[in-house]
Amino acid sequence: MKAFTSLLSPAEARERYAAAFHPAPLGIERVPLFEALHRVLAEEIRAAADLPAFPRSTVDGYAVRAADTTGASSGTPVTLALVGEVLMGEEVQLRVSTGETARMPTGGAIPTGADAVVMQEHTVRADSRVAVERSVRSGENVVPRGADVHRGDVLLSPGRRIRAQDLGLLAGLNRPDVSVYRRPHVGVIVTGDELVAPGQSIRGSQIYDMNTYTLSGLIDDAGGLAQPRGILGDNLAVLVDRVRMAHAASDALILSGGSSVGEKDVVADAIAALGAPGIVVHGIAIRPGKPTILAVCNGKPVFGLPGNVVSAMVTFDQFVRPVIQGLAGLREERRFGLVITARLTQTVSAGAREDHMRVALEERDGTIWASPLPSGSAIITSMVRADGIVVVPMNTVAEEGTEVEVRLLD
Amino acid sequence: MKAFTSLLSPAEARERYAAAFHPAPLGIERVPLFEALHRVLAEEIRAAADLPAFPRSTVDGYAVRAADTTGASSGTPVTLALVGEVLMGEEVQLRVSTGETARMPTGGAIPTGADAVVMQEHTVRADSRVAVERSVRSGENVVPRGADVHRGDVLLSPGRRIRAQDLGLLAGLNRPDVSVYRRPHVGVIVTGDELVAPGQSIRGSQIYDMNTYTLSGLIDDAGGLAQPRGILGDNLAVLVDRVRMAHAASDALILSGGSSVGEKDVVADAIAALGAPGIVVHGIAIRPGKPTILAVCNGKPVFGLPGNVVSAMVTFDQFVRPVIQGLAGLREERRFGLVITARLTQTVSAGAREDHMRVALEERDGTIWASPLPSGSAIITSMVRADGIVVVPMNTVAEEGTEVEVRLLD
Repeated sequence: MKAFTSLLSPAEARERYAAAFHPAPLGIERVPLFEALHRVLAEEIRAAADLPAFPRSTVDGYAVRAADTTGASSGTPVTLALVGEVLMGEEVQLRVSTGETARMPTGGAIPTGADAVVMQEHTVRADSRVAVERSVRSGENVVPRGADVHRGDVLLSPGRRIRAQDLGLLAGLNRPDVSVYRRPHVGVIVTGDELVAPGQSIRGSQIYDMNTYTLSGLIDDAGGLAQPRGILGDNLAVLVDRVRMAHAASDALILSGGSSVGEKDVVADAIAALGAPGIVVHGIAIRPGKPTILAVCNGKPVFGLPGNVVSAMVTFDQFVRPVIQGLAGLREERRFGLVITARLTQTVSAGAREDHMRVALEERDGTIWASPLPSGSAIITSMVRADGIVVVPMNTVAEEGTEVEVRLLD
Repeated sequence: MKAFTSLLSPAEARERYAAAFHPAPLGIERVPLFEALHRVLAEEIRAAADLPAFPRSTVDGYAVRAADTTGASSGTPVTLALVGEVLMGEEVQLRVSTGETARMPTGGAIPTGADAVVMQEHTVRADSRVAVERSVRSGENVVPRGADVHRGDVLLSPGRRIRAQDLGLLAGLNRPDVSVYRRPHVGVIVTGDELVAPGQSIRGSQIYDMNTYTLSGLIDDAGGLAQPRGILGDNLAVLVDRVRMAHAASDALILSGGSSVGEKDVVADAIAALGAPGIVVHGIAIRPGKPTILAVCNGKPVFGLPGNVVSAMVTFDQFVRPVIQGLAGLREERRFGLVITARLTQTVSAGAREDHMRVALEERDGTIWASPLPSGSAIITSMVRADGIVVVPMNTVAEEGTEVEVRLLD
């Protein structure tokens, strides 16, 4: 009979695991821009040229030398000779000299000699003469060359999750494809003689497997590619064999269930059989999630998460997600809006384990209130109804009305 | 020569468009659970049975009648007769009578007669006798039948974006597949004689098309399926023809560029040719984004967004995204953490148009500061560097240090 003789705090568990395994990206692949959204950038993007590559007009109107427009008004317009029209995309052959002007479309390239654009609304055109009714200063209505990007600027760094606007920038820099990190393949094995896949019929005290689906969703959200490997019973020999195959085929492996210390808990033995250094942490002072195993076997991370689905979600979030994100190449970015402040609708407390409490949020009279949801670690609806998680430190009581930090889910 | 004679405020534009077009889901498809993450649920999920379907133990230990354990302690243990072991997943044939107990695994079904479980740590077993060293109350260490879900409960409603925990719940309810709304197909056409697709070579004052990529990313993020349809020049006949084809093939259509009121701005004419009622809004008091067109043609939404990429992003977010989300069936959920409060690092102002200002955020000494980024509507890097958007109302000045709401991007 084994027992959890000493539980590490969540922080100690993370620290010990970080000393045993440092996740690094697994490789690089080249993808077309249309497939790059939300992938993790694997190259530094520098500007090979200025953007815009030439000064551009921000308005429809007439390109002028600003000095020519001094004193112009609707009462005393300045009349300029129209020498041509700038066409979008064409080589600009025009030259605007003193007393001259050229028709400009929005976005068009400013012709040589001109240094400003008068908006169309402030002009009156008659044949080849344009009366300017407002003065402009040099540079007015012009985006200078390089205003957006200077040649050589570092614009995007590796480890960034690519957003829609990043796609636009990459397109603007003439990069039809881009290097991204390969997504880590994360195997999922659930164990338990009582588990049956949805779609099958059940009998006796069998139940449907929830963890394969929940963990697969969490893996995908973390930037990995889930590889569900089915349900195994608690037979050690079979388990060791199948776990070894999954371990060989994946970049990381998650087992769920059977990591408690009961007589039939064979997951720890199966993990131990995968190679050195093996189990780094077994048992964490977290609620839910005490029987969590963190391991490294032959250079790959392996996790034994509790069988209760809520425990599996909480411990995934705390210990597995950061590792998958590291394998995916995602740099921990400073992000805003992930944590908000709310007041507790009831008094809560934690004992010898840090409590990761699911809460539903509601706004009343400008205050956000956090209501604790049922605490049972098998209660999937507590996660389905949850907007966020409140961490109650060990041996703490937080009174009703206390301000707490809520980490938002999703 | 046309002109923007009267600009609607963004709120008026939204209101007028909402009166002309009400987006509704386009159809339903059935997908396996493994493909359902982030899709929009199209059915109401009710529980067909209680979950758990039977009372379960939350610990490893021994099932007992609580009354039998009254007064038990390590000094005065109560000894019970071991009548058997509950096995995971098997039909429970055992019955626990007064003076009896049965071995229980975590998650196992409580046998008839028993109403509590004593944790293994508080027992000593010798052959077929178990000494109980702590008393338990009725229900202790037991999850009652239906604690998670009662038969008939509405658990998930249509319009919900499916999260990882929802997959778990659906699996637990024996639903290997689920009805989701079909994703709307959204065509994207960019116009401009100056535009060239990345990967091609450019000459003269040509530039690379950014909007196809940026808009496609935004469409996907909103729950649509982007259908990029390439770059068209400003020839009206060709444009009308190609726009008509794209309109027929899509559920919604976005044109970008050429919606200003210059002589060559043919997008409005091409949209008008698509059918009644046609253009609903043309010109909005928003900065950037003034020349935006909102239209409904033959029952499908059609948008003419500005050619400048930042303007296209801002107006997409304000006017197009809600429509795509509606077509995708997504109900506007109350969500937290989308807007945060920050202080301005400099004084800003808006004139006759509501200003949608891009800001970078930085936390210093516990305060979040918002720094306005370059305001030019062609400056893609202002969006790439932005953490969020601050809306400055028309004819307003906001002083340095003012608290403002920042809507976070991504």
